[in-house]
Amino acid sequence: MVRRRGANAKCHGLASATTLGKPAGMDPIAPDLAELARRIFAELRAADHDGTGITRETYGLAETAAMRRIEKLALAAGLTTAWDAAANLHVTLPGTDPSLPAAACGSHLDSVPQGGNFDGAAGVIAGLLALLGAQRAGPRPRTLKLLVLRGEESAWYGRPYLGSSALFGSFDPKWLDLPCLQDPALRLREAMAREGAEIAVVESRQQLLDPAKISHFVELHIEQGPVMVARGVPVGLVSGIRGNVRHPAARCLGEAAHSGAVPRWLRRDAVLGAADLAMRLDASWRTLLERGEDLVMTFGIFTTDPREHAMTRVPGEVRFTLEYRSESEATLEDFLALAESEAAEVARERRVRIALGPAVRTPPAVMDARLLAHAQGLCRAAAMPHEVLASGAGHDAAIFANAGVPAAMVFVRNEHGSHNPNEAMEMEDFLHGAAVLQALLLTGAEAVSR
Amino acid sequence: MVRRRGANAKCHGLASATTLGKPAGMDPIAPDLAELARRIFAELRAADHDGTGITRETYGLAETAAMRRIEKLALAAGLTTAWDAAANLHVTLPGTDPSLPAAACGSHLDSVPQGGNFDGAAGVIAGLLALLGAQRAGPRPRTLKLLVLRGEESAWYGRPYLGSSALFGSFDPKWLDLPCLQDPALRLREAMAREGAEIAVVESRQQLLDPAKISHFVELHIEQGPVMVARGVPVGLVSGIRGNVRHPAARCLGEAAHSGAVPRWLRRDAVLGAADLAMRLDASWRTLLERGEDLVMTFGIFTTDPREHAMTRVPGEVRFTLEYRSESEATLEDFLALAESEAAEVARERRVRIALGPAVRTPPAVMDARLLAHAQGLCRAAAMPHEVLASGAGHDAAIFANAGVPAAMVFVRNEHGSHNPNEAMEMEDFLHGAAVLQALLLTGAEAVSR
Repeated sequence: MVRRRGANAKCHGLASATTLGKPAGMDPIAPDLAELARRIFAELRAADHDGTGITRETYGLAETAAMRRIEKLALAAGLTTAWDAAANLHVTLPGTDPSLPAAACGSHLDSVPQGGNFDGAAGVIAGLLALLGAQRAGPRPRTLKLLVLRGEESAWYGRPYLGSSALFGSFDPKWLDLPCLQDPALRLREAMAREGAEIAVVESRQQLLDPAKISHFVELHIEQGPVMVARGVPVGLVSGIRGNVRHPAARCLGEAAHSGAVPRWLRRDAVLGAADLAMRLDASWRTLLERGEDLVMTFGIFTTDPREHAMTRVPGEVRFTLEYRSESEATLEDFLALAESEAAEVARERRVRIALGPAVRTPPAVMDARLLAHAQGLCRAAAMPHEVLASGAGHDAAIFANAGVPAAMVFVRNEHGSHNPNEAMEMEDFLHGAAVLQALLLTGAEAVSR
Repeated sequence: MVRRRGANAKCHGLASATTLGKPAGMDPIAPDLAELARRIFAELRAADHDGTGITRETYGLAETAAMRRIEKLALAAGLTTAWDAAANLHVTLPGTDPSLPAAACGSHLDSVPQGGNFDGAAGVIAGLLALLGAQRAGPRPRTLKLLVLRGEESAWYGRPYLGSSALFGSFDPKWLDLPCLQDPALRLREAMAREGAEIAVVESRQQLLDPAKISHFVELHIEQGPVMVARGVPVGLVSGIRGNVRHPAARCLGEAAHSGAVPRWLRRDAVLGAADLAMRLDASWRTLLERGEDLVMTFGIFTTDPREHAMTRVPGEVRFTLEYRSESEATLEDFLALAESEAAEVARERRVRIALGPAVRTPPAVMDARLLAHAQGLCRAAAMPHEVLASGAGHDAAIFANAGVPAAMVFVRNEHGSHNPNEAMEMEDFLHGAAVLQALLLTGAEAVSR
């Protein structure tokens, strides 16, 4: 009996398959672990539903309670746990060869106010399933880690990736003084200390995790856009996390005037100027997409001046924001140059002034091409419908990638976007994604030769 | 000596020239009357400067005081005066043949809050000069009238042309209950009664002036746009007062979404939708101008929703206003149809919804073509640089035209628009315009055969 169980476990165990040198395979999540995942999602929802949506504050009581819930399950299963100086939770399944860099996965448990139950939590629960699945399959050389990261959402202190940034010493000590946007009397420093962080260590910017000791990092996350629903695929493989250029304070300045008394040839119309710029950039966007480049562009705020605009007044000013995102830094820089030259052209033609203002840059994070190719191979071999797509939103995985850890991301199909109570991920899709995560965690190190 | 003075007066008197059957001429304003005009402008400015601009409230104390100042000068010169039931002032220079319809001119003395000294007052002062100049020239068959009209500005009670509307029974009694926008405790009814109006008469909508007893009406006004400054002409002859169609509550509805996670092909971007509509209508506007049609178009208010817009959010809604004005009702209706069809096309192409909302129509007021041609002839004969242009703003003259009185308007070059303290009319230009007004007042009746 023991032997048969062992054999069964071996048959389904991916680590074993790798150890044997066979092509890496992908095992489905076991039915009891699938049931466990359902239960954790339900418990988290019950604990943190605020009447409208899910609220788990960054470095907050609910976030800590959710982390302790994961820790308790891990300890009960015989995994080991530890909390670092930034109060991130590390869950470990030790391997037989401690000299090998550990394979890591993880995500976050905080949410935006009145958010959904899946943004962040899905990646943590999938990681727990991966460790529990690997544990059943028996010993393997490489240590596996689940990192439950703090404070990924910028909705609370205006800065995202607090926990993962602290891991690699990129947490700026100035952030400790940020006030909680929902409760300005509370500073991040107090919230972190209250939830168990060692502020002096964080402040010293020392590394809490050595990137060289991690073979690779994999994060599962719900898709926050509509692409996978539209395309009908349950699993997405992320090619990169888009960087962006933001112009938070752009303006088009014309000349306010009587709407009836100024003919077209004498107008300096700020709305027509800004609209012209928007249409020119939209046309360029379309052209760049046709050329195969990755790009999204948004004029999120676009408004005449409420203190002086009127139906019968030629608008003298439009304030607007312009943001564009791409996986490619070159595309971003090209688009910036394009925006500036189109703005100058519109200004000349329409006798207005367009100031795009400061350009705030966030670099793209490149997902590891070898891990991506490996993940595609895994999905193809398992006949798993999947699609490669860019992540428009930022993720902790970007922090790992930028710290030099080969990183990969698995997206799970999800309707209605995220950061709202209507996130809608099917459990079946989650289990497909969790199987891909588990396979990547177990076999990815070989793909990146670490 | 007496004879010589008489001969001199006759030589400069336009009425005399007409009486003699000679082609109507245009006499310059006499130097002492020019000096009088300068003095009245200066006195009005001194009396009503509020520290920033000129403030003479509709049916207000300052408006009445300014009217009494004009009345006093008229009485001192031997003209007769009367106040009607709407508290408009009628200044009369009787003619020798009371059976002839009277020739009338006039304008208003109220201003917007912190406005300029010329909008309205220029027309009243020019009218006074015309009557005084005619008086010196000696008796003429036709009675001349200067109408100093109340409440032309909508800035105080939200409705323009109060005094002129009352003249012809088109004053809606509901307006009596309008609150003063600057002092909501004050109703128009109280303000009118305080300044001498007979409310019961106004309420009964009886005509205070019989249109059949007026041969024609001429109004001088500063230009409220930049055309004449740009073209370098001191005098404008108004071809018509533009009507308009207004959409005060137009909206473009898309779908708010994460700016990074939604690709172009899945977006419903409200800003790009509304900007596309603006650019299409701008292109049509240009085409219509090239075809020689009269049109101006304005998106005066154009704004994403401040409660939910953000730099990192695909905009889900844009509220905007759309107004277009033309001398031609047909052009307005054509443009409305065009706006609706372009909105439907943009909605289809960009997967948004565009609702232009209610269309509020104000019909154009046609200036009398015979008076316009006559005015052109007068200017040409006097080598007066002039230009024919449409009035984009509304004027009391429109009320006369729509009541069946042949009407004409003379514009005077003015920098910086109106409704602001920076109105800048040169006295030299004013005197040119006043000479045209006087000539039109004296000779226009023949042009329209009344």
